Amino acid sequence: MTDIAVLGGTGRHGGGLARRFAAAGQRVIVGSRDPDRGRATVSAWGSPGIQIADYASAVRSAAIVVLALPFRSVDAMLGEVAGHFSSGSLVVDVTVPLEFAAGKMVMIDVPEGSATQHIRTLLPPAVDLAGTFKTVPAGLLGETHAALDCDEFVCGDSDTARAEAAALVRLVPGLRPVDVGPLSRARYIEHMTALAVVINRKHKIHDARFRVVGLP
Amino acid sequence: MTDIAVLGGTGRHGGGLARRFAAAGQRVIVGSRDPDRGRATVSAWGSPGIQIADYASAVRSAAIVVLALPFRSVDAMLGEVAGHFSSGSLVVDVTVPLEFAAGKMVMIDVPEGSATQHIRTLLPPAVDLAGTFKTVPAGLLGETHAALDCDEFVCGDSDTARAEAAALVRLVPGLRPVDVGPLSRARYIEHMTALAVVINRKHKIHDARFRVVGLP
Repeated sequence: MTDIAVLGGTGRHGGGLARRFAAAGQRVIVGSRDPDRGRATVSAWGSPGIQIADYASAVRSAAIVVLALPFRSVDAMLGEVAGHFSSGSLVVDVTVPLEFAAGKMVMIDVPEGSATQHIRTLLPPAVDLAGTFKTVPAGLLGETHAALDCDEFVCGDSDTARAEAAALVRLVPGLRPVDVGPLSRARYIEHMTALAVVINRKHKIHDARFRVVGLP
Repeated sequence: MTDIAVLGGTGRHGGGLARRFAAAGQRVIVGSRDPDRGRATVSAWGSPGIQIADYASAVRSAAIVVLALPFRSVDAMLGEVAGHFSSGSLVVDVTVPLEFAAGKMVMIDVPEGSATQHIRTLLPPAVDLAGTFKTVPAGLLGETHAALDCDEFVCGDSDTARAEAAALVRLVPGLRPVDVGPLSRARYIEHMTALAVVINRKHKIHDARFRVVGLP
């Protein structure tokens, strides 16, 4: 049992992950900009294993820190808390550089190639980084008894980062981790999320996700 | 029964498509830079419904023209044959802007955003364009009795182009077309192909492909 901090854990994506991790028996700390405001959200979940704290406290107390804020909010947040990570901790980036302007989905152009590679430049070198949980539908994560039945792509520059992130994926029933190698592959994963959003809108569904065919 | 031209049809990807279309009862014309050299390849397939011709003749005689050359060869080829398309014909782009340098896969940076959008700029306005068959593994297409069991994403700026391309996908047993809207979505599809290549290499398999979960 590890302490897992989920920054942005009162949001839809982060909240779904926090509850799924707690349901798997993990101790979860939701990191929030305003813990007093977020406390009601967390209480309403009725998950005894979930606490709430400000970003810096959440980061300090956890071996695994999940970044589940909107991509546009990550820079400011990491600017505040980058000094608080424990050496050897793992950051798991679940953000996607998408935004919605006047109902239209736009991919934000990230000079580093992907959200995860951008985040790498903001983290202390002693903190390891993996990208995953980028394609699983946030709404479906939040329905904690819903079957997921899909694959989650995992990237990271170290074997340890990918293995730990894959173990996190396996905590959630119905998710299979698929190792896709270094962080540079985050770009491909983030484009798949964009495609899932497009499929949802075009086909009037909510939970498009992916399964790799051909893996043993 | 329509005449389908497959330009680059002696290659692995194009050859698989040509044989699959012929197996579905279509008349197929393989378009080749050097039909005399390509004839032996086509004969070896033993498919009575497949003929071979030079690019311009293939383009002139077909209502549907599939572009299955390497992406780097498309500009020169279309420069030669762009004047030969019948008005109202449909071009189906199956290319992906990937190349392999010293064993490493590289995505070619295409200023228009994707191979399909680049190709749009090279075609006469009266010719319609769709992108599909970009994620199906070429090797598996060529094993004409192998089960495919995956989805093919279809994009195009007109409803007709997407519907005709989807019908082409349905000719191949085990492929389900998934409409993803306008040509601008080709970018997402091409990134998925890159991810499939990465998964093949990382997991020592050959036929990684995708299925969308959550579609009715």
